[in-house]
Amino acid sequence: MKIAVDAMGGDFGPRMTVKGAVRASEDYNLEVLLVGVEGLIKKEFDKLHSTKGKVTIIDAPDPIGMGEGVFSFRKKKKSSILVGAQLVKDKSADAFVSVGNTAAVVFISKKILGALNGVDRPALALLVPTLKGLTLLIDVGANANCLPHHLQQFAFMGRIFMEGVLGLKNPRIGLMSIGEESTKGNELTKEAFERIQASPLNFIGNVEGKDIYSGKADVIVSDGFTGNVALKASEGVVEMLFSTVRHEIMKNILARIGFFLMNKNLKRIYKKLDYSEYGGAHLLGIDGVCIIGHGRSNSNAVKNAVRVAKEFVMNKVKERIQQELTRATLGQNGI
Amino acid sequence: MKIAVDAMGGDFGPRMTVKGAVRASEDYNLEVLLVGVEGLIKKEFDKLHSTKGKVTIIDAPDPIGMGEGVFSFRKKKKSSILVGAQLVKDKSADAFVSVGNTAAVVFISKKILGALNGVDRPALALLVPTLKGLTLLIDVGANANCLPHHLQQFAFMGRIFMEGVLGLKNPRIGLMSIGEESTKGNELTKEAFERIQASPLNFIGNVEGKDIYSGKADVIVSDGFTGNVALKASEGVVEMLFSTVRHEIMKNILARIGFFLMNKNLKRIYKKLDYSEYGGAHLLGIDGVCIIGHGRSNSNAVKNAVRVAKEFVMNKVKERIQQELTRATLGQNGI
Repeated sequence: MKIAVDAMGGDFGPRMTVKGAVRASEDYNLEVLLVGVEGLIKKEFDKLHSTKGKVTIIDAPDPIGMGEGVFSFRKKKKSSILVGAQLVKDKSADAFVSVGNTAAVVFISKKILGALNGVDRPALALLVPTLKGLTLLIDVGANANCLPHHLQQFAFMGRIFMEGVLGLKNPRIGLMSIGEESTKGNELTKEAFERIQASPLNFIGNVEGKDIYSGKADVIVSDGFTGNVALKASEGVVEMLFSTVRHEIMKNILARIGFFLMNKNLKRIYKKLDYSEYGGAHLLGIDGVCIIGHGRSNSNAVKNAVRVAKEFVMNKVKERIQQELTRATLGQNGI
Repeated sequence: MKIAVDAMGGDFGPRMTVKGAVRASEDYNLEVLLVGVEGLIKKEFDKLHSTKGKVTIIDAPDPIGMGEGVFSFRKKKKSSILVGAQLVKDKSADAFVSVGNTAAVVFISKKILGALNGVDRPALALLVPTLKGLTLLIDVGANANCLPHHLQQFAFMGRIFMEGVLGLKNPRIGLMSIGEESTKGNELTKEAFERIQASPLNFIGNVEGKDIYSGKADVIVSDGFTGNVALKASEGVVEMLFSTVRHEIMKNILARIGFFLMNKNLKRIYKKLDYSEYGGAHLLGIDGVCIIGHGRSNSNAVKNAVRVAKEFVMNKVKERIQQELTRATLGQNGI
């Protein structure tokens, strides 16, 4: 298997991406195609003295910055993201992994690879740690404006992902809303509620923001605007909490000793909460495999993203989404 | 000053509401009208042996449950919420405070008191603790569907609140979105962006979910659906975090000692994060004063909510919103 990795993406660039990709190649027995500015990649690769890694460097001299907007990045014809997506399109790679500019990866991957038949809107799906395991939140930012049947398609794609990648039978689907009764929500969710309920899915009804982390549903369906805000609000409050704890423990020696004694446990908690452990977001519904990691990803997170891409390919999730949604479009599933 | 308090609301009912309201009466030199089932209120009041509190009990025998939906609660003509709102309408009370069913308080208060001239949609505004102080998030759930000019009005109401209650001059207004550039967002926020930018407000542009807690803006404007989901997602992740910490520290004795040593600091952090310290959400834009506390409010939170209601009345925030939005409607403020 060959996985193309955007070596230029992320807050730390090639230093983390090259290391993570090479370690993934060594540990998971696959070939990585490192896409980006050749000289920079080579420099990082040489530092690793890897003998086992199967690595090819693909030059893409025109990187896209993390903050770059669509008016800027769409002009770049030789970016690592465009070249990486093109490798999947040409079947030179089985999947593409990036920890770069999310908006750019979504925009370019959709443009180059296109959507699967039966999918109107590819969506970003993210596995989130909960009290009871993992919940898939879909969409977390690919589609700021959605129609009810888009949310219904997200529900189907989420189910197939959880069955195909996590082996979960008949996952519980929840619809993100602001109250549990079917009458609660906005115009979009009220109509989506009816549609999802009429589908052959294990639909448990509306869930609320707090249920992202309660484990009440296996898949939570949301428009990309709300999903993105909810996720970033969660990140924000956790950051504030950790920052406040750090500030507080500096105030007295007992608290510092206490913190030291709890350190191993706190690290385990941090690892549990760390999204990067779960390999990043999946752009579901495109005709290809594309994983987008957090910009802050370190080499371990990049390695995990490559692992997840491999599992996604091996479990033929893309093909299963295609089959299921084609069947649905033919009217058998109520879409 | 007279403040009507819904004695039946909240997860703990009269046990907490009566105590909190009576303590507020004693400490802040005001009269409280305790609204609800007379016998239950009297029983709790007698337990307190209050001599200083100025308290009147107003019978309202038909309480609304925390989970009750609109089809159910709108039929109750003698609920504590309806009777409480009516006291404000009749000018028998200066403000109404409830920690009850938020949907019911919003629905009934809007119906009984009506909106101020120039306000199309009253909105729920909540002060949220951030890294740098407090940020007002508006709307957190009163309006699931919004139009761009509603968000613009929320921005005005938020500014007046922060100036009038917190004494903050020219507060920074941010628009909740999914990226900082003006081109990021959904159809609603893109049009609202233009409108708010054209208004005489200190508009700092789009902010993201994480900025609810970063202190980047003093007021963050959002539709009520997104604001509610973001807030509840934050609550959910913090609950998961605390639950995980509790679970982890039970695993070994060193961690338990560490936790014990940090206990005082952790309590201070918890207090900082606890919304109830800040007195609950404000239903801005109605022709009256209405404060809605968290259902989980203890007596201290109820007392704080009454204090905030008093400040709101003393600072004439309602009157200032009325003046400012009437002026705006006359075309001087670009609405």
